[in-house]
Amino acid sequence: MNAEAKLKELGIELPPAPPKGGVYKPVVFTGDLAFVSGHGPYQADETYMSGKVGSDLDLEAAQKAARQTGLALLATIQKEVGLDKVKRVIKLLGMVNATPEFGEHPKVINGCSELFRDVFGEDGVGSRSAVGMGSLPGNIPVEIELTIEVER
Amino acid sequence: MNAEAKLKELGIELPPAPPKGGVYKPVVFTGDLAFVSGHGPYQADETYMSGKVGSDLDLEAAQKAARQTGLALLATIQKEVGLDKVKRVIKLLGMVNATPEFGEHPKVINGCSELFRDVFGEDGVGSRSAVGMGSLPGNIPVEIELTIEVER
Amino acid sequence: MNAEAKLKELGIELPPAPPKGGVYKPVVFTGDLAFVSGHGPYQADETYMSGKVGSDLDLEAAQKAARQTGLALLATIQKEVGLDKVKRVIKLLGMVNATPEFGEHPKVINGCSELFRDVFGEDGVGSRSAVGMGSLPGNIPVEIELTIEVER
Repeated sequence: MNAEAKLKELGIELPPAPPKGGVYKPVVFTGDLAFVSGHGPYQADETYMSGKVGSDLDLEAAQKAARQTGLALLATIQKEVGLDKVKRVIKLLGMVNATPEFGEHPKVINGCSELFRDVFGEDGVGSRSAVGMGSLPGNIPVEIELTIEVER
Repeated sequence: MNAEAKLKELGIELPPAPPKGGVYKPVVFTGDLAFVSGHGPYQADETYMSGKVGSDLDLEAAQKAARQTGLALLATIQKEVGLDKVKRVIKLLGMVNATPEFGEHPKVINGCSELFRDVFGEDGVGSRSAVGMGSLPGNIPVEIELTIEVER
Repeated sequence: MNAEAKLKELGIELPPAPPKGGVYKPVVFTGDLAFVSGHGPYQADETYMSGKVGSDLDLEAAQKAARQTGLALLATIQKEVGLDKVKRVIKLLGMVNATPEFGEHPKVINGCSELFRDVFGEDGVGSRSAVGMGSLPGNIPVEIELTIEVER
């Protein structure tokens, strides 16, 4: 898989890999798995999107936030793993900072999942849960945690 | 382990495996692990149970929803893996769509865990977290994500 | 790594390993990974800390709860795995029972992550997500789920 070339072909520019916000590692490897820490929608201007989905943000804005979170994940993977070392997405935990009444979490998280499919093809589509959190760090609208299989 | 026979012996009928609700795979295999996507209480009539636990649903109704979620997981495993290929449940993440005051998540998720123990024996009992979400897709009361060890 | 000696050197006393609160196993092994069930802030007096972060508990109290949760995790690991068998922390899911407005989840969960770094060194620092739940069992302020790599 040539994800770097695909990224260029699609004209996608990644934000910088987000700085660490606590005591953790961005990626930990074990066997041929890499566990990627939860990421938020970190942007090129080095700020995070924020707001609660269902009140501050509508579905479309939330999908953009999920896509931006995917771009931040790709930036970290590019830096810590190498995009062309990714064999498959194994598992994605998509967490939406939503109002208690919100119910379209899968559509929100598709914003990230479609990006990964565009970049990695069908191997970019993993197992998934898309769920609603009561709150998220700094009131970011989306946080996504990833497990991938990598070439080592 | 002969889970198919056990299912018959117990007179348990599974709902159909739920259709995909977004860009993900129902199950992804790596090594001898299978990661099963988050499932909700999908029923034989092809609808989901819904309602928030602690207001719309009481403990007993929530336990039934967790059991139904377990049945939906079994239906997906039957279709995508084969029930008799399951060696052990490794990890279960039990997510309850609850009011902020609700506190009996472990009892709710037991509705699924007891089903798995009935079907797979002690190997059906894995590690677990049982927690409260702010919201879930389509206002389902329970979503459960599963990691299992399989024969390949 | 000699975590038992380190624990003694630091004068850290562990609470008892918490009793099971449902149908699950405290730890499940597969390959060289151990999946540790979600733990809360179980104390020496065999009760759990409780309260919602952002209303009942402030940041400092929440950090103490996260540290106490880390101590309870260590107690379970000591009993079920052996502290000196831990090779590395792979992944930590830090769940904070918070008000919808709360935003300092990473600082809260650092209370646990710093403890693990003290006891296991840099290998005690894994990948991580720190997020806000709508509710948790028995209104505990923090629940943490852990994946570790172990010598077998």
